[in-house]
Amino acid sequence: MSQSGSVVGGPTIVDADVHEGLKSIRDLLPHLDPKWHNHITQYGWQGPANPLPYVVLSGEDGTRIDWMLEDKSMRGSDLNLMRKHLFEGEQITVGILNGDFRPSTMQGWHEFAADLAAAYNDWQIAVWLDPEPRLRGAIHVASHDPQIAAREIDRLGQHPQIVQAFLPAINDREYGDPYYLPIFEAAVRNDLAVTLHHCGHTRSALGYPRYQIEWHATAIPQTMMCQLASMICNGVFDRFPELKVVVLESGFTWIPHFMWRMDEHFRSLRVEIPWVKRKPSDILRAQVRVSTQPAETLSKRQFLGLLDQMETEDMLVFSTDYPHWDSDSPSRALPAGLPDGLQQKILSGNAVAAFGPRLLP
Amino acid sequence: MSQSGSVVGGPTIVDADVHEGLKSIRDLLPHLDPKWHNHITQYGWQGPANPLPYVVLSGEDGTRIDWMLEDKSMRGSDLNLMRKHLFEGEQITVGILNGDFRPSTMQGWHEFAADLAAAYNDWQIAVWLDPEPRLRGAIHVASHDPQIAAREIDRLGQHPQIVQAFLPAINDREYGDPYYLPIFEAAVRNDLAVTLHHCGHTRSALGYPRYQIEWHATAIPQTMMCQLASMICNGVFDRFPELKVVVLESGFTWIPHFMWRMDEHFRSLRVEIPWVKRKPSDILRAQVRVSTQPAETLSKRQFLGLLDQMETEDMLVFSTDYPHWDSDSPSRALPAGLPDGLQQKILSGNAVAAFGPRLLP
Repeated sequence: MSQSGSVVGGPTIVDADVHEGLKSIRDLLPHLDPKWHNHITQYGWQGPANPLPYVVLSGEDGTRIDWMLEDKSMRGSDLNLMRKHLFEGEQITVGILNGDFRPSTMQGWHEFAADLAAAYNDWQIAVWLDPEPRLRGAIHVASHDPQIAAREIDRLGQHPQIVQAFLPAINDREYGDPYYLPIFEAAVRNDLAVTLHHCGHTRSALGYPRYQIEWHATAIPQTMMCQLASMICNGVFDRFPELKVVVLESGFTWIPHFMWRMDEHFRSLRVEIPWVKRKPSDILRAQVRVSTQPAETLSKRQFLGLLDQMETEDMLVFSTDYPHWDSDSPSRALPAGLPDGLQQKILSGNAVAAFGPRLLP
Repeated sequence: MSQSGSVVGGPTIVDADVHEGLKSIRDLLPHLDPKWHNHITQYGWQGPANPLPYVVLSGEDGTRIDWMLEDKSMRGSDLNLMRKHLFEGEQITVGILNGDFRPSTMQGWHEFAADLAAAYNDWQIAVWLDPEPRLRGAIHVASHDPQIAAREIDRLGQHPQIVQAFLPAINDREYGDPYYLPIFEAAVRNDLAVTLHHCGHTRSALGYPRYQIEWHATAIPQTMMCQLASMICNGVFDRFPELKVVVLESGFTWIPHFMWRMDEHFRSLRVEIPWVKRKPSDILRAQVRVSTQPAETLSKRQFLGLLDQMETEDMLVFSTDYPHWDSDSPSRALPAGLPDGLQQKILSGNAVAAFGPRLLP
């Protein structure tokens, strides 16, 4: 090569952007500090494009080890195993499906997301609800396009085993914003609850903090408080007094704080939102339900103290979070020795009141 | 003008970007729906570039109406009035200044921010601390540059009336990140508490929601929980067991929830953070203090129930938030009938333990 860069017989060509590829993240194992290996070999971390930067120390994709399929395929993807684990093992009477497939989280390509949601809903009915009368289902939507989402809710909203319209909590969508009203309208006209669930796109006030402990302890309950504040302040509950919103997998110890704090600011700043006629805690007690998992380890006294602070026994509905690693069992999630009537409300009565008669066997 | 755009005697010139200017946001009043007028004429809203999109229904810049200066100049900017309101009116013995000037919130131009912080600190000493022995002060820093911030803390950290290094809670800074360690190191070597306070840049998990009620009820406590989780998980409290962090103006009803939730996830996920040796609630009880304002309206039973859930009487320190519209009075912030010893801890004992002997008169 000459100094000027030419070679004999042709010009010199430098390509400054060539992409080599890992066949699998496992290709890095021989080069990676061994303390990280089991996150990849056992716990299923897929690479930097994982929706969450974290991985939990459990079966692939967060499944509880003893609930994994033998071939380690997708968690919860076998009806017979679910029957064995949930209906036999945990003695559940009725299970409400929430899946793990979230077309709403696709940040672009709305039309594909909407048709994926519809395909998933049809698959859910064919593969889970039709063969198993103890299961109830959700209508998944692409929440970025509320008009199309409402049509999907209307398409399946009268199915006898469908009990909810499902919204993943994504932090750049304030579901109280009037933009999303068609979703709530469609849910109400089909006698469906609206359920909120976190997802890999759920962030805390700091975004994705450095550790999963932080993310789990802050992002999930905080985003739910924000979404409820948004729905309260934008008048969603006043517009639809028959609406029930069920917050899933977010715990419940935040409720008294959230009630007091919202009431306090409503007292001083309600002039901002004259369309809201009841104080926030009254709205929450009347129209919001919260599933119990992950139930923090509380004594009976602490648990009853929380219900006393909430001033209602109607808000909590039991859930396992099957098949995840931190799943709760109905025999252990609640403190021992609760009054029978209260226990029965949490295990079933409150859910029937929230989701309506379609929930009954 | 001809069809081609030329004029007689010269070329046609179109300037597509010319900026006219409002002399004041008040120029819009004749054109603005009257229901908004008092936000501008009475409550001091300055225009779309306000750090917060909201304004409170109070004196200019959020000052309590009866604490405004006669000439409506900047709130709290008159020492004699502060003496009258705070030391005479509210019977405060020692007041800790936190100001409203936040060089840390300048998102660029770090060197100017750092020198502004130093100038503010010197002004604070000359104008407030020197003439008034009942006041204590803060070292303000530009937290984006922790090395320069640490030098500023060392420059003034031995002043007999300085009791804290002050950090505004900004959501793109996780103060537990090792990047910020020099700030904590400098505070500890100067026997100063580190205080956290929200600012106009404090956001909720949804950013800036539509209404101030939402922002106030979610952004402030959520950001504080996130910052504490960050400091806990990154080992700040383990590295500096003598450090006290005081969370200001964020309420306190979130503490039991935050303790339970953090402990629950620490139990299952502590392998992520092996350098953290105590459970989060133990760290919080030992090293974190929380000022009482804004104290939600709680009955004595509810208030004592919360302390019972915290399992300590040591965490709360009284504050007024002078001179803001939602200021708390020592005679009304706490429920009536608290045990004398507890009341005295909250009104002074816990603060002296947190800020050290320099707090004493």
